[in-house]
Amino acid sequence: MSLQHILELCGIAFFAVSGALVANQKSKPDWFGVTFIGFITSIGGGSIRDMLLGSYPLSWVKDPTIIYVIIASIVITSLFFNKLIRFKKIFFIFDTLGIAMFTILGTEKALNFHVDPAIAAIMGMFSAIMGGVIRDVLTNQVPVIFRKEIYATACLIGAIVYLILNALNCERYTCLIASTLIIIAIRVVAVKYQLSLPQFNREK
Amino acid sequence: MSLQHILELCGIAFFAVSGALVANQKSKPDWFGVTFIGFITSIGGGSIRDMLLGSYPLSWVKDPTIIYVIIASIVITSLFFNKLIRFKKIFFIFDTLGIAMFTILGTEKALNFHVDPAIAAIMGMFSAIMGGVIRDVLTNQVPVIFRKEIYATACLIGAIVYLILNALNCERYTCLIASTLIIIAIRVVAVKYQLSLPQFNREK
Amino acid sequence: MSLQHILELCGIAFFAVSGALVANQKSKPDWFGVTFIGFITSIGGGSIRDMLLGSYPLSWVKDPTIIYVIIASIVITSLFFNKLIRFKKIFFIFDTLGIAMFTILGTEKALNFHVDPAIAAIMGMFSAIMGGVIRDVLTNQVPVIFRKEIYATACLIGAIVYLILNALNCERYTCLIASTLIIIAIRVVAVKYQLSLPQFNREK
Repeated sequence: MSLQHILELCGIAFFAVSGALVANQKSKPDWFGVTFIGFITSIGGGSIRDMLLGSYPLSWVKDPTIIYVIIASIVITSLFFNKLIRFKKIFFIFDTLGIAMFTILGTEKALNFHVDPAIAAIMGMFSAIMGGVIRDVLTNQVPVIFRKEIYATACLIGAIVYLILNALNCERYTCLIASTLIIIAIRVVAVKYQLSLPQFNREK
Repeated sequence: MSLQHILELCGIAFFAVSGALVANQKSKPDWFGVTFIGFITSIGGGSIRDMLLGSYPLSWVKDPTIIYVIIASIVITSLFFNKLIRFKKIFFIFDTLGIAMFTILGTEKALNFHVDPAIAAIMGMFSAIMGGVIRDVLTNQVPVIFRKEIYATACLIGAIVYLILNALNCERYTCLIASTLIIIAIRVVAVKYQLSLPQFNREK
Repeated sequence: MSLQHILELCGIAFFAVSGALVANQKSKPDWFGVTFIGFITSIGGGSIRDMLLGSYPLSWVKDPTIIYVIIASIVITSLFFNKLIRFKKIFFIFDTLGIAMFTILGTEKALNFHVDPAIAAIMGMFSAIMGGVIRDVLTNQVPVIFRKEIYATACLIGAIVYLILNALNCERYTCLIASTLIIIAIRVVAVKYQLSLPQFNREK
């Protein structure tokens, strides 16, 4: 099992936990509902990317390990529920690592389909955020990405940095690590200083 | 026309009626809205399964009979509306037959793509429940599967029974009938005794 | 650049503006949220049609001009926001041209996949309305097409007219122009006289 595969499974696990916690907060669903939303949250972004690219078979359809990782994550979330909801910092760290990794791996995958760099950046961002968007739609909320401190924008900037380094012929791991760090740095600064993008309409 | 095709069309018809009734209950849409939601409810689950598997062309795109069956179902629903809403039992029977059949046929179809059994079970369940999930999202509700008595879980168990019998080299019709009966039995018992899965979080 | 391509980009631009305005009205999202919803509104319908048909690569994945047109539209919307929200008539004109064009080009594209005419009509209508449906779901509203004066139905009728003229071996541009005009005429009449389809259920 390669390092990349392990990192991907970590991202999957985190998104499953985050999906389960958000689902539980809002509509008190049963065990099935929580597992279903955790599952959709973690595989949603990559599935949408792959269906838009026409990249078949989808990763989780090809690799059932992903399913078992999700189920294990949900069980663990249940066991440590009362502890997990107290440590908001741990979640911030996992979430940030998760979106950073999903963005860059998604951008890379899109590039393999020889799309324009603008499309690759969008596909990278979609990989990171679309699971959360579906989770919010299923729990009947306006998606959090439309309101949260600089979030999807951080993914987009990271993807663009990756594409620039890649165009400059930097080595793969240099591109990966530099752009991942950029996303993490933007998120940390945005949350610490509560930075948001300006509202679209400053009505007068 | 084979027996399987007829059964599939019956499932389609039921889901169209159920979609139309739910749509009408909630947001009083016009004729177009009701037909649209009935259509999406009946073809949604199979379409999502096929788009996840990359199985093109989708059944309803290939076979326009499905469209005519849906339109006929909506017209019939309209004519007998005031009678239909009184006989809740009839709906329960149709719905249960519908999800049982969709689950097992969906599981079979996924197996033809040589996926892992865990994936085949998920695809079977998706075939049965995803139409209803989209219907609920379009009518701006939290999907009913997250709250209802053991529903999606019954599909999942039926799919697993099918996969076990299939792995034991049982004859196709034995697998089909046994697993369909399991789903029906679980639903009947769940509704009769109002069984639900436990809530995910028992907050203290 | 062909006339058809220019018309398509105009349709894309209009849908982006309409998406941005609706998004802003409802939930006051930030710049990213507005751009995201504008993007989804304009590429959503065509993407769903292509994913249902299995027509890869999707137009916007192949042609990044679409992305730049969307971004430019959002910037222009922002600059002229206070003027744009006053001229409702301009929007009606653009929207009507947009859905007419998307319907007919979508129907044509589906026909190239040798589907049944009933399927081609549905695919044409989906091209025109599904972007708006996703926009409404993301902003947590019941899709406007279920309530608005004859809208999706106008698209459907236009698509059927196109298919009839096409079956009669009319020349391509005759089919295109006649059916586009039909959609525009229905919309103008429907809005002027506030025509709606009958409600599905006249409860007694």
